[in-house]
Amino acid sequence: MADDMPTKILLSEDEQPTQWYNVIADLPTPPPPPLHPGTHEPAGPDDLAPLFPMALIEQEMTADRYIDIPGGVLDVYKLWRPSPLFRAHRLEALLDTPAKIFYKYEGVSPAGSHKPNTSVPQAFYNNAEGVTKLTTETGAGQWGSALAFATAQYGMECEVWQVAASYRAKPHRKTMMEIWGASVHSSPSELTEFGRGLLAENPDHPGSLGIAISEAVAMAVADPETRYALGSVLNHVLLHQTVIGEEALLQLAKVGVTPDVLVGCTGGGSNFGGLAFPFLREKLAGNMNPTIRCVEPAACPTLTKGEYRYDFGDTAGMTPLLKMHTLGHGFIPEPIHAGGLRYHGMSPLVSHVYNEGLVEAISIPQTECFAGAIQFARAEGIVPAPEPTHAIAAAIREAQAAKEAGEERVILTALCGHGHLDLASYENYLAGGLKDYDLPDEAIAAAMEAVPVLD
Amino acid sequence: MADDMPTKILLSEDEQPTQWYNVIADLPTPPPPPLHPGTHEPAGPDDLAPLFPMALIEQEMTADRYIDIPGGVLDVYKLWRPSPLFRAHRLEALLDTPAKIFYKYEGVSPAGSHKPNTSVPQAFYNNAEGVTKLTTETGAGQWGSALAFATAQYGMECEVWQVAASYRAKPHRKTMMEIWGASVHSSPSELTEFGRGLLAENPDHPGSLGIAISEAVAMAVADPETRYALGSVLNHVLLHQTVIGEEALLQLAKVGVTPDVLVGCTGGGSNFGGLAFPFLREKLAGNMNPTIRCVEPAACPTLTKGEYRYDFGDTAGMTPLLKMHTLGHGFIPEPIHAGGLRYHGMSPLVSHVYNEGLVEAISIPQTECFAGAIQFARAEGIVPAPEPTHAIAAAIREAQAAKEAGEERVILTALCGHGHLDLASYENYLAGGLKDYDLPDEAIAAAMEAVPVLD
Repeated sequence: MADDMPTKILLSEDEQPTQWYNVIADLPTPPPPPLHPGTHEPAGPDDLAPLFPMALIEQEMTADRYIDIPGGVLDVYKLWRPSPLFRAHRLEALLDTPAKIFYKYEGVSPAGSHKPNTSVPQAFYNNAEGVTKLTTETGAGQWGSALAFATAQYGMECEVWQVAASYRAKPHRKTMMEIWGASVHSSPSELTEFGRGLLAENPDHPGSLGIAISEAVAMAVADPETRYALGSVLNHVLLHQTVIGEEALLQLAKVGVTPDVLVGCTGGGSNFGGLAFPFLREKLAGNMNPTIRCVEPAACPTLTKGEYRYDFGDTAGMTPLLKMHTLGHGFIPEPIHAGGLRYHGMSPLVSHVYNEGLVEAISIPQTECFAGAIQFARAEGIVPAPEPTHAIAAAIREAQAAKEAGEERVILTALCGHGHLDLASYENYLAGGLKDYDLPDEAIAAAMEAVPVLD
Repeated sequence: MADDMPTKILLSEDEQPTQWYNVIADLPTPPPPPLHPGTHEPAGPDDLAPLFPMALIEQEMTADRYIDIPGGVLDVYKLWRPSPLFRAHRLEALLDTPAKIFYKYEGVSPAGSHKPNTSVPQAFYNNAEGVTKLTTETGAGQWGSALAFATAQYGMECEVWQVAASYRAKPHRKTMMEIWGASVHSSPSELTEFGRGLLAENPDHPGSLGIAISEAVAMAVADPETRYALGSVLNHVLLHQTVIGEEALLQLAKVGVTPDVLVGCTGGGSNFGGLAFPFLREKLAGNMNPTIRCVEPAACPTLTKGEYRYDFGDTAGMTPLLKMHTLGHGFIPEPIHAGGLRYHGMSPLVSHVYNEGLVEAISIPQTECFAGAIQFARAEGIVPAPEPTHAIAAAIREAQAAKEAGEERVILTALCGHGHLDLASYENYLAGGLKDYDLPDEAIAAAMEAVPVLD
């Protein structure tokens, strides 16, 4: 053991942050607004009202720096929050690095990922406004599980459209959602016009996150007591996730360190934003100066290869237009195992701070990610979900760079979920069946042709 | 929320217990010794040396009250210990009970159960004595996972015989063990004479825990650098598990309560003993007076319907003879989902304290257990493993009794693992496919006929 710092840096429930942090208040320039999909004018609260309760719409649009977390949300958060910050003593020893590696572990939530940080307040606010049912989509299954758990806490119904390929490959995710009382449909489904059309073309359609969003949105707008819940991308989702970074700041302060580099995996951007934005605040205030870096899959390199354009959040083009880094709303990524990172777009907030040069981005191929995850599991015990294997692989790169430089750098990352329901991906990796995908520029250019030209 | 007690009662790593507790030191009478399977004389250290390192044999036989936990074990424990004690505020509200329900959650370990509490010291002591490989059996997969994790921490090899029915039904358990570097075989296997014989009779043999033990033992004794590791039943295993109860005592003291009733599920007895023995010490010392109750599956009612006799720990009759409550070493329980509770015998220590009237026992059918687990998951979030659903169902019975009596009783139980790798059992339950099994007295009598008469 290199030093006597604890393995787990804990906070008591008394030390739990009681406010979410809105990074917009501290940015040099505001992010571009969402646009109405029909008029291309900035979308107002009324445009979003069929989808979300007013409390969440206000959070989506506010410039307030801090938002109080309601008591009814804090009570449920206490089932797993504050989450532990781990010092990776044993991984450091394995890598023989002078770096100090810290990981904020979100797999302690009942659903096994960071997603309940936002599913709980989303269910809470909907319930408070009389909404009785929420619809949503899920790819890897983490978000659907999180919303099923949250709606159970408030006695609400929950209906989930699970991407067909995932629905077939991961029956246990469906069971987990059903344990919490949710109904789960394979997407595309016979329940929406859009789904029926796709199934008519191809009865074995594998589905995609964009298609599942279209179906869940269509079902929500058709029923006045039903609303829709999104697990990433939007401002209010990233707002809720800032509990991760706020806790991590308090935890690092307890052991007297500040990060030199922060790496987080990015799919829709909520895990990354949740960890990074409170640290970005401290950086902008001059209190610390970490390099902050997004890590995305080489097969879906939204930031590093996509364009910064207005595009739809879903495949059918029903959502507001969002200014974001995108590969095109019709882009369907190769079937990498990190299903939660297979999204054509990126959170407008993360896209904006990346465009402003406040954060960096890299992409990593999945075989390197799984190799890193095996090292991590043997050293630290925890088997990571496929998504945060990207963050781990990046942290290992940083630890090796610190070793080469002979510098005692402090590396912070988020282990946003465990891989207990994703072991088939490890089976595939261990059997040598995993492959990496090159994404030709032509494929991106072709997908971008369908994106409206608004800039 | 009924009161302002925290949801999670935590201990820091500084407060982590540094000694295991040996209940033998405080019992009114000593437990009967194990006997050599050939001579029927008390087994000595030399008889156990082909199976276990001397440090564990000493722990198996010692009458010392406390054993220091080595620093090399405490360091690995810190990956998840001290584990949280939860106050089940939300389950209490759901049940509308005046009872205060506490559960000690062991699912935070990397392998997802209480089993690493003993796999880690077992690997540590073997490694310290130059053993390079451990063999073991696994039924539900929890123990094999725990040993695979532990051996990875000390750079050792690990070979696991997984009961064939479980091997086929739970491919992900095998993958989890392989992630940590273990080799996994279906049992019965072609690798042992006993296994080959059984496969010759029935190529689709479903296996059993007793058979898998026989195979793992046979492989260990055949190689001088290999030893065997057992996940339950023996004194040293229960000794290591007492960290559960020692932590729970400290945690309850923090909130100023003592339990009125303690319920724990019993398969081999290590989770129950680990939780209960430190409380039994306090009870025998007159510091508190909880009712302490074992909860076993109705389909494998070792304590409530078995006989207290000398019997073999395995099916082939290779282990020392143990004085224990047994259904007969040839007894093969019905295929209930709680694979970890499908063992013909019971820890000699738990059997002894039960025989002495120091603890009570009940059995519960599995449909009641899963119904309770669904209530628990929707209230508390965590999806329990099938084994601790028995403890939860018993805790719910106690909470209902407290409500009927109008008494504010304090109930303590152990949630010894999560169910993330056992979701197929919930799928079966939710689909109405789960059944309960009556165990006729004649079936037990028939199995007992093969047990040697030594008393």
